[in-house]
Amino acid sequence: MYYLGIDLGGTNIAAGIVNDQMELIYKTSIPTESKTGEDNIIGRMAKVAKMAIKGAGIREDEVIHIGVGSPGAIDSVNGVVVGAENLGLVRTEMAKKLGAYFPGKPVYLGNDANVAAWAEFKCGAAKGAKDAIMVTLGTGVGGGIIADGKLHTGFNDIGGELGHTVIQMGGRLCGCGRKGCWEAYASVSGLIKTTKEYMEKYPDSLMWKISDSLDKVNGLTSFEAMRKGDEAAQKVVDEYLYAVAAGIINMINIFQPEILCIGGGISKEGKYLLDPIKKHVEAEAYGGGVSKHTTLKIAELGNDAGIIGAALLGT
Amino acid sequence: MYYLGIDLGGTNIAAGIVNDQMELIYKTSIPTESKTGEDNIIGRMAKVAKMAIKGAGIREDEVIHIGVGSPGAIDSVNGVVVGAENLGLVRTEMAKKLGAYFPGKPVYLGNDANVAAWAEFKCGAAKGAKDAIMVTLGTGVGGGIIADGKLHTGFNDIGGELGHTVIQMGGRLCGCGRKGCWEAYASVSGLIKTTKEYMEKYPDSLMWKISDSLDKVNGLTSFEAMRKGDEAAQKVVDEYLYAVAAGIINMINIFQPEILCIGGGISKEGKYLLDPIKKHVEAEAYGGGVSKHTTLKIAELGNDAGIIGAALLGT
Repeated sequence: MYYLGIDLGGTNIAAGIVNDQMELIYKTSIPTESKTGEDNIIGRMAKVAKMAIKGAGIREDEVIHIGVGSPGAIDSVNGVVVGAENLGLVRTEMAKKLGAYFPGKPVYLGNDANVAAWAEFKCGAAKGAKDAIMVTLGTGVGGGIIADGKLHTGFNDIGGELGHTVIQMGGRLCGCGRKGCWEAYASVSGLIKTTKEYMEKYPDSLMWKISDSLDKVNGLTSFEAMRKGDEAAQKVVDEYLYAVAAGIINMINIFQPEILCIGGGISKEGKYLLDPIKKHVEAEAYGGGVSKHTTLKIAELGNDAGIIGAALLGT
Repeated sequence: MYYLGIDLGGTNIAAGIVNDQMELIYKTSIPTESKTGEDNIIGRMAKVAKMAIKGAGIREDEVIHIGVGSPGAIDSVNGVVVGAENLGLVRTEMAKKLGAYFPGKPVYLGNDANVAAWAEFKCGAAKGAKDAIMVTLGTGVGGGIIADGKLHTGFNDIGGELGHTVIQMGGRLCGCGRKGCWEAYASVSGLIKTTKEYMEKYPDSLMWKISDSLDKVNGLTSFEAMRKGDEAAQKVVDEYLYAVAAGIINMINIFQPEILCIGGGISKEGKYLLDPIKKHVEAEAYGGGVSKHTTLKIAELGNDAGIIGAALLGT
């Protein structure tokens, strides 16, 4: 038997088939056409889902259920996307409407960051850890909480907004309206902002050679220049990683997860990301004299976490 | 049948009897004699427990089990106090040693802040809320997490250190070694520090009349002067409550608890504490367009939460 997972994004909709060994055996994607309204978007979700079934060479009746990971606020009990601004979805009855294309099949729905955490817990970096946290360092900072083997989303289903925790009162304005959120420092956008600040202060920095104008700065600029020995870039990376670690240590002191895994674009930096963060954690996290401490890892499933986690909702 | 709860503190050991309606029917306390070593302390715990049984007019065989709330790091599975510095307890086999005084009775053990949260969840301000947070604004800032009706303490049992989350990177040095912890701003000690800072800046403030020297400043000084119209005191309280709210909003965005209740000495300020915090929460907490939002409350059980929560461990 198989599970079908759909990862609904602002640009593309990806769908894939996961087998009962929790392996992704086939995936495909099509553009979202995000400005075309909920009926068209859901129609496209059904289309790419059927393409995945066909591509995997299985029959529709071999699919046990369908899971969807969506951005925004989700009501997972009723299968409703309460609000996903960038897709124009407001109180969209996703489970019901998508389910109409697949009569008789249950449709599960979850927030995309939560779904990615669920995937890492079920078959990725946090496999088997009943208490686990996943932090996604992407355009924003997303999060997912596994508490006692279950996805914790709070009584109203919108919990896990780890990126919207203030680590610098009165600091950088965040997209959420608060000042000083972790996301404003630890996201790719936060890193780019810090990179630009230092480039303006250090006109001789190698970062100007890598990105010849401020407009071309991206999340790699500072890491690349740092590896070539640039001092200003080292300061950017140090400051960035201190902020990433500040939030990670906060999460450890709150949850004491067995595993905390880091995903998202910046996680590709691997040891350049993980090693300095581990040092900060060792120096600052509450240990209480106990012998067991949180293990920090890079997430394993990459972009597939969204499809796999969605497919495995309800398992 | 009855439950016996012991609240082990640095100054006093309190014990009480809770009936099967979760009512505290009798309590008493004796000094801890905290410098006298674990055997004496445990002996005194047994003594005050037996005093409570006698005082309640019940028989020892009517007590179903004993629960203990202890400061420090706890291994609740094995009933061990891993470390409670101010009591000189290190890897103390509490359940085994205290149990020797009460043959055949189970002894449960929990961290004091967690135990207080458990009490508020079982029969106080957070009753019936399967997802709840308790924040204690006392000498430090303590916390307790109820996730899906269970106390969440993490895989190593030392989670819930909500006070040791950084809200101001590079800020005030905290007792835990980190800089800028919530506790360094939102605890009574943090409030006193802020009060003194403003008193030094405002030599004409009414706060100087209420506490005629900096040494006499306490957690009430600023609130009292504020209610009498003092401007500098208003600034202290505003700044204090902003910091309290910053951490509370962080917890809401992470957990989205049905109820978040505030206990500890400062919670006696009631509406002077709660109303401004509610305003900050309304302005800043992530709402996601959903209709259900966290309810903020003052904790209901006061100092009895420690005894009641301990007694109800294991229920």
